[in-house]
Amino acid sequence: MQTDFLRIIDILGTFAFAVSGASMAINKKLDVFGVLVIAFVTSVGGGTIRDIMIGNLPVSWLQNEVTILVILISTGITLFFRHRLQQLPVTLFLFDAMGLGLFTIAGVELAADKGFSTGICISLGTITACFGGVLRDVLLNQVPLIFRKEIYATACVAGALIYFLFKSLHVDSGLIKILCILSIVIIRVLAVKYKWAIPQIGSLKRE
Amino acid sequence: MQTDFLRIIDILGTFAFAVSGASMAINKKLDVFGVLVIAFVTSVGGGTIRDIMIGNLPVSWLQNEVTILVILISTGITLFFRHRLQQLPVTLFLFDAMGLGLFTIAGVELAADKGFSTGICISLGTITACFGGVLRDVLLNQVPLIFRKEIYATACVAGALIYFLFKSLHVDSGLIKILCILSIVIIRVLAVKYKWAIPQIGSLKRE
Amino acid sequence: MQTDFLRIIDILGTFAFAVSGASMAINKKLDVFGVLVIAFVTSVGGGTIRDIMIGNLPVSWLQNEVTILVILISTGITLFFRHRLQQLPVTLFLFDAMGLGLFTIAGVELAADKGFSTGICISLGTITACFGGVLRDVLLNQVPLIFRKEIYATACVAGALIYFLFKSLHVDSGLIKILCILSIVIIRVLAVKYKWAIPQIGSLKRE
Repeated sequence: MQTDFLRIIDILGTFAFAVSGASMAINKKLDVFGVLVIAFVTSVGGGTIRDIMIGNLPVSWLQNEVTILVILISTGITLFFRHRLQQLPVTLFLFDAMGLGLFTIAGVELAADKGFSTGICISLGTITACFGGVLRDVLLNQVPLIFRKEIYATACVAGALIYFLFKSLHVDSGLIKILCILSIVIIRVLAVKYKWAIPQIGSLKRE
Repeated sequence: MQTDFLRIIDILGTFAFAVSGASMAINKKLDVFGVLVIAFVTSVGGGTIRDIMIGNLPVSWLQNEVTILVILISTGITLFFRHRLQQLPVTLFLFDAMGLGLFTIAGVELAADKGFSTGICISLGTITACFGGVLRDVLLNQVPLIFRKEIYATACVAGALIYFLFKSLHVDSGLIKILCILSIVIIRVLAVKYKWAIPQIGSLKRE
Repeated sequence: MQTDFLRIIDILGTFAFAVSGASMAINKKLDVFGVLVIAFVTSVGGGTIRDIMIGNLPVSWLQNEVTILVILISTGITLFFRHRLQQLPVTLFLFDAMGLGLFTIAGVELAADKGFSTGICISLGTITACFGGVLRDVLLNQVPLIFRKEIYATACVAGALIYFLFKSLHVDSGLIKILCILSIVIIRVLAVKYKWAIPQIGSLKRE
């Protein structure tokens, strides 16, 4: 059941990130195939980097065709409803925030299962959630949003910390997951609404 | 013999992509070492990503020094004949198209050997053929050509589909390989000659 | 003792590259989290790529939290002393040169331990030393310095060659490491001081 729960989280996260990636690629006026590749990279990129680094090979999305199917369908839906989606920027933003929450937990849980220490689990959760977007931005030839935006990766770190806090309090494991995902989504919503940002550092070269 | 055949395909593909990568790096006015690195990345990049994702480690080109030698020689030849090559853009284009065909088949065959399902084999063949060029473009700081160009990765997908079609018809396996490589090269030639392109999607933001 | 020595080299190299990466990120006006990520990628990137390609998984920095701690501390120090560091460009340059020397030897030794042939060991040492910087530049959306600069990766290749030369002469292994690191640092210093450069190749398209 635990595994089923994680699989559902994974499919929902894949769907959320594929929609968000495809929309950004459509905005960049890529062709249909390019939109598909960017949707693919955005949704499986983070998990692929995590799987490779911990030696969980072949990487998850190669182990069955469900992920490929989910991405094909999500991209199809995004392409079909692109005009409607454009009037729903908040919806698109929420897809991205949900993907972030879902994948952070998926990454933290997998790492904890493999016996990594807490600091490493937090790093791997953050990488799972954020690096699909980093790869997407690199392929689209722009400085990754993660380096420019309001609280983004920090929301993942906070969510992962909440996870370990609740776990040490012996909260039910299903409940922990839901609380963490919600807290990441809420941090993102508040961060964007109230323009929370991490302080920028004055340039090393005083100009 | 099957393995010998695959090894020859691999060496030819490495040569073709090294020449094509080195030429592009020369055009970008990199120094000799930069030209070598780009030739290297273009020719081994796709196979390296494939090997890493399926857990075929150490990656192929580390298992003997043949690949390194082939790349050194191809880059040397490209540097030596650079003025002649500049008058032969069609030749350079054909090198790239041949690399694409050879590496698609190499990737599909390796994946099929490892027992992956058809959809995964097609994805891995396409990644093997296209992602060396993607890495090259990322290092040269340009939006990957794969996202801008006429039919490119689609030619690989088509070639891989033809491979499985012929295989289901029990055509001789050596013949299948040659037919697939040829069909990918021909699709590329026709795509460029007649400017075939995948439809671009209207922007999500109606401007 | 051999292993202890390598571990010290690794920690020093991580420190050197984290400082150099963090400084560059501060110059690019990233926020605190961005500075941390760039410091991270610069210092563990090369070793991570090496570990992944040879199948040494989970990658080294996941095996304990020392590396993460070193990077957090180095980034903290860099942020704290950023105004002082800006008046010490030579110091920053030396940090980078030392990181280059330390990581080349770390990469060559690991590869030699795993039984790879000389040519492969030299490639892997160079990748260990240079590709953290390449990833940093890709994330900062600039053409990697390695392709633009005076003798850089070439210093690593030279250092690795000196390593195998001394090894064939049966010089003491601790001494070899120190000599190689010094020679890479010295080559870098001389290259920058006297503007040594690898010849650029005239463009393929005569313009």
